[in-house]
Amino acid sequence: MSECIFCKIVDGQIPAAKLIETEKVISFLDINPVNPGHALVAPKRHVSSLLDLRQDELHVLMFVAKRVAAAVIRATGSPAFNILQNDGEAAGQIIDHVHFHVIPRDPEDGFRLGWRHLKYAEGQIEQLQQAIQQNL
Amino acid sequence: MSECIFCKIVDGQIPAAKLIETEKVISFLDINPVNPGHALVAPKRHVSSLLDLRQDELHVLMFVAKRVAAAVIRATGSPAFNILQNDGEAAGQIIDHVHFHVIPRDPEDGFRLGWRHLKYAEGQIEQLQQAIQQNL
Repeated sequence: MSECIFCKIVDGQIPAAKLIETEKVISFLDINPVNPGHALVAPKRHVSSLLDLRQDELHVLMFVAKRVAAAVIRATGSPAFNILQNDGEAAGQIIDHVHFHVIPRDPEDGFRLGWRHLKYAEGQIEQLQQAIQQNL
Repeated sequence: MSECIFCKIVDGQIPAAKLIETEKVISFLDINPVNPGHALVAPKRHVSSLLDLRQDELHVLMFVAKRVAAAVIRATGSPAFNILQNDGEAAGQIIDHVHFHVIPRDPEDGFRLGWRHLKYAEGQIEQLQQAIQQNL
């Protein structure tokens, strides 16, 4: 039996504050939210990485994420939100089952994404552009 | 004429390190990246919020974002990535044209998302669950 906590939520073995469920996708509230109303949207199938999702799953996942985001905004009255997916341990992924965060945001909520703006060295952006294009 | 910088990139009025372009979507490198290889994926049509995107646009946008993420990972050798969309000023949206960030991540890259884990008060999660479901 899977030890994945999200698979257990899908199977009903672990309770969750579910918001919506389709054939392929589930959404529920994060129990330790960045802000109240912070929702998660995940495929029911156990997949670790976004890169392993089928296109039909990604399609429904984003359809549900958008719908959940709209409902979270209406329910919380927040004027903004972040959609975030952490893919891999170095990106902050803790549960090894791909999921998108929908996080309602307010001007004074005190949550900072810690953004930074690096500069490319001369020629570096063109090198990366080429390297990425060769891998597309 | 639109003053939107992303619309000008779409129109070719402003240069950008483009990665891929489809009928409805464009991807290019962020010139001030969180990490080298940080890419943006945007619909060509000027839309401020994800909530105003048509489903066909969102579908292609995520198809391209996934493909770009895979190529960025291969080109940079990074083991992980974040997919992030900031919707609204309070969420950190600066350019008023919806876009997803694809950010390659490494264990020692020094970028912190500033995550936090709040606790719900007794009954609060159920109240929010109901309020969100009523708005779905």
